[in-house]
Amino acid sequence: MGNKLTKRSEDYSKWYNDLVLNADLAENSGVRGFMVIKPYGYAIWEKMQAELDRLFKETGHQNAYFPLLIPKSYFSKEASHVAGFAKECAVVTHYRLKNAEDGSGIIVDPDAKLEEELIVRPTSETIIWDTYRKWVQSYRDLPLLINQWANVVRWEMRTRLFLRTTEFLWQEGHTAHATKAEAITEAELMMNVYAEFAENFMAMPVVKGVKSVNERFAGALETYCIEALMQDGKALQAGTSHFLGQNFAKAFDVKFTSKEGKQEFVWATSWGVSTRLIGALIMTHSDDNGLVLPPNLAPIQVVIVPIHKTEEQLDQIIEKASDIIKHLKSKGISVKLDQRTTHSPGWKFAEYELKGVPVRLAIGPRDLENGTLEIARRDTLEKKVITFDEAPLYIENLLKQIQADLFEKALSYRDSHITEVENFESFKDVLENKGGFVSAHWDGTSETEEKIKELTKATIRCIPLNSDNQTGVCVFTGKPSQRKVLFAKAY
Amino acid sequence: MGNKLTKRSEDYSKWYNDLVLNADLAENSGVRGFMVIKPYGYAIWEKMQAELDRLFKETGHQNAYFPLLIPKSYFSKEASHVAGFAKECAVVTHYRLKNAEDGSGIIVDPDAKLEEELIVRPTSETIIWDTYRKWVQSYRDLPLLINQWANVVRWEMRTRLFLRTTEFLWQEGHTAHATKAEAITEAELMMNVYAEFAENFMAMPVVKGVKSVNERFAGALETYCIEALMQDGKALQAGTSHFLGQNFAKAFDVKFTSKEGKQEFVWATSWGVSTRLIGALIMTHSDDNGLVLPPNLAPIQVVIVPIHKTEEQLDQIIEKASDIIKHLKSKGISVKLDQRTTHSPGWKFAEYELKGVPVRLAIGPRDLENGTLEIARRDTLEKKVITFDEAPLYIENLLKQIQADLFEKALSYRDSHITEVENFESFKDVLENKGGFVSAHWDGTSETEEKIKELTKATIRCIPLNSDNQTGVCVFTGKPSQRKVLFAKAY
Repeated sequence: MGNKLTKRSEDYSKWYNDLVLNADLAENSGVRGFMVIKPYGYAIWEKMQAELDRLFKETGHQNAYFPLLIPKSYFSKEASHVAGFAKECAVVTHYRLKNAEDGSGIIVDPDAKLEEELIVRPTSETIIWDTYRKWVQSYRDLPLLINQWANVVRWEMRTRLFLRTTEFLWQEGHTAHATKAEAITEAELMMNVYAEFAENFMAMPVVKGVKSVNERFAGALETYCIEALMQDGKALQAGTSHFLGQNFAKAFDVKFTSKEGKQEFVWATSWGVSTRLIGALIMTHSDDNGLVLPPNLAPIQVVIVPIHKTEEQLDQIIEKASDIIKHLKSKGISVKLDQRTTHSPGWKFAEYELKGVPVRLAIGPRDLENGTLEIARRDTLEKKVITFDEAPLYIENLLKQIQADLFEKALSYRDSHITEVENFESFKDVLENKGGFVSAHWDGTSETEEKIKELTKATIRCIPLNSDNQTGVCVFTGKPSQRKVLFAKAY
Repeated sequence: MGNKLTKRSEDYSKWYNDLVLNADLAENSGVRGFMVIKPYGYAIWEKMQAELDRLFKETGHQNAYFPLLIPKSYFSKEASHVAGFAKECAVVTHYRLKNAEDGSGIIVDPDAKLEEELIVRPTSETIIWDTYRKWVQSYRDLPLLINQWANVVRWEMRTRLFLRTTEFLWQEGHTAHATKAEAITEAELMMNVYAEFAENFMAMPVVKGVKSVNERFAGALETYCIEALMQDGKALQAGTSHFLGQNFAKAFDVKFTSKEGKQEFVWATSWGVSTRLIGALIMTHSDDNGLVLPPNLAPIQVVIVPIHKTEEQLDQIIEKASDIIKHLKSKGISVKLDQRTTHSPGWKFAEYELKGVPVRLAIGPRDLENGTLEIARRDTLEKKVITFDEAPLYIENLLKQIQADLFEKALSYRDSHITEVENFESFKDVLENKGGFVSAHWDGTSETEEKIKELTKATIRCIPLNSDNQTGVCVFTGKPSQRKVLFAKAY
């Protein structure tokens, strides 16, 4: 099997698409803008889900499920929300098909028109807050800490596998609190949970920050985010957590009786990450040979490829491999033995390289004689010969090492691509030639942000939380600035 | 808290609805026919999902994800399928809303009409087989063993929480095989997997069988099923597995090159269970006091309620309880300590009874002195005093005992409600007065089946696989019959 991938240096965007298709992660479906997530891609999503779900539950959240279809009128109740969301979405207008009278096939039955159109959820704030009204009476009912795993639909004109699809899978947390302070703490907590997941499982360093007003979620008072940097120097918003104030409580009349016996509106947050993270994972680590997966999210962590000429050799190799598999499984390591005789070892090497399996073991007849095996790591492509006896511990440590190395490599790339600039010429120069984040003073106005976007296509990715808040002058207008913010071109 | 449930003997249907609402399992949403699955109900679904997913993976299946919306024309490709499914369904006709020019709110943008309407999936055979065409070329690509966890929508006029809702959650397996024999083996395997799940986890005995032609899945050549019996004598179809022949392969042109180099159509199966199972679980075990859950699916298996007057006593009880919790958790038992001081022990007893927690422990000041605790089992409401030392092992065994007892009780009810009848008078009498399954000879024709349904509302639930195939004469027409089949009124 030859390597079918476009090189990153030739066309990064084409490389990405080639990789998603060739590594069997996803493909476009017959329905425009909708993707099929193939088993290998879905297995990565299942690993992500399992870890995120654990982190959500450890922080006190429970899962629930709310309706897919939402009455149109619900969206009108929160003014800024409808402006941001309800426009580009799938609208259900009828509930029945029938046979055409002229025998030409099935048609929409005009008699089955809905009184009120239903919207396929683009996000669930409205239907959930309509429900919370019934669930919240007293301060004793608070906080409500709920998460939903679901599919959502946002009509997109230009789609890219995982990064921007009309339908995507995600989780959306929706919490209700008695006080403003509690809600803000929750929104910050979930940003931190996302950052922990991104860094410890995806091996993807992120900047934590808040969005400028322009980039805020429709209906939020504050949007916390984690921003990552892809290999091509473009930023990617990897997760957001919104402090929604009392906007939805007021729109859906969700009040509670406080300890002091007063009627008060509830405070809200919402937060989400999606299958977009798979796109981020790919563009953080992968190379011209294919996918590179961090061991903590790899569906297969170790693959064993037998190299043999005779049936008898194969049997002996399988027997030896079984011992290693038993050892590794007892340590919770997922391992696959590929004993297919329909494919050559060389084909298998290329296949697992393309699919990003972190560690590959090869065992041949010479190895059986010597009590050794060849071990190759996917990230560096380094190979080494080790003995059977040392293999289990060596592999266990190697997986940890690869996880750590991938993070360090991505961190070092990211850190070397945060460039401080003091004037607009350098600003443009860095964006044009070097890429990455540009750290610059900004006068805090939406007008300036928009003008910069027009001129450079860069947006404010976030106002970092760890900023030292040094004042200065805006890189574009020269007006006073409270702190530097991060600009970048973004996915 | 008084018991708010209607008694089963008064109104079984109202009892069911009361229970679902009061035990916080689900509720109707603001969208007609759509339910909200509340955290406690969803936690049961998560337990079901985890066990089913494990069973699917152990039998070689992988998960994937296919589009929510399916072009209308796809449904027309398989004639019997469209007749059975595409009629009562949600139809997406537009992809944008806009502000009304008269300022009256948001309206559907007439300029954003889709060229071809999209159907919210009622089931995914069509979109999946459209995809399989690209995945299958050679016999080496087979079998394809794929499952999807998803939401589906079937427009229902009369809905009941969990049992029949317009949207429901389910899994749908879709497999492709090189031979007819392999596909039939797969369909039978999955029926057996469902039966294993129903009996070992839900503690719900099932009859395995095949459907009559009338009751078959739209597009199937054979529908295997598991049928359960509810406490009110009505049957419930708990899971189905379909042998689809080459119908979908032909409709979507999915061919493969066989080992012999010939082009052949692929053989198919599909199989599914849904959130309906939660309704079946409720109606198999629960009583007038509330939910009764089998330990293998209970989100909380053991609850500990402290009984105290002073703060000091509470602290001592919590300390003692912590030891027990540690022991139980080490054995994989989920346990909750309810140390809230806002609610009385009596309130908590009623609450956990209502929610069906299998085992309740109560610890009071006297227990601390005596080194004992009170243990109550939910299914029989029996109480007993045991020592702290014996508690961990006792509880572990008790959970197994409850699981086994629930199954035995349901089995004994079910077995005593399969009534053999030899003439139509007894047939009607049993259906009217005793309920349950009626085992009777049937002449094998759809006409007879339909007439019996008209007269009695009973349908053929299944042709049991373990039948002894004794011939006889049809209970209705007197014509020759090959074997007895099971009739019942059904959910």
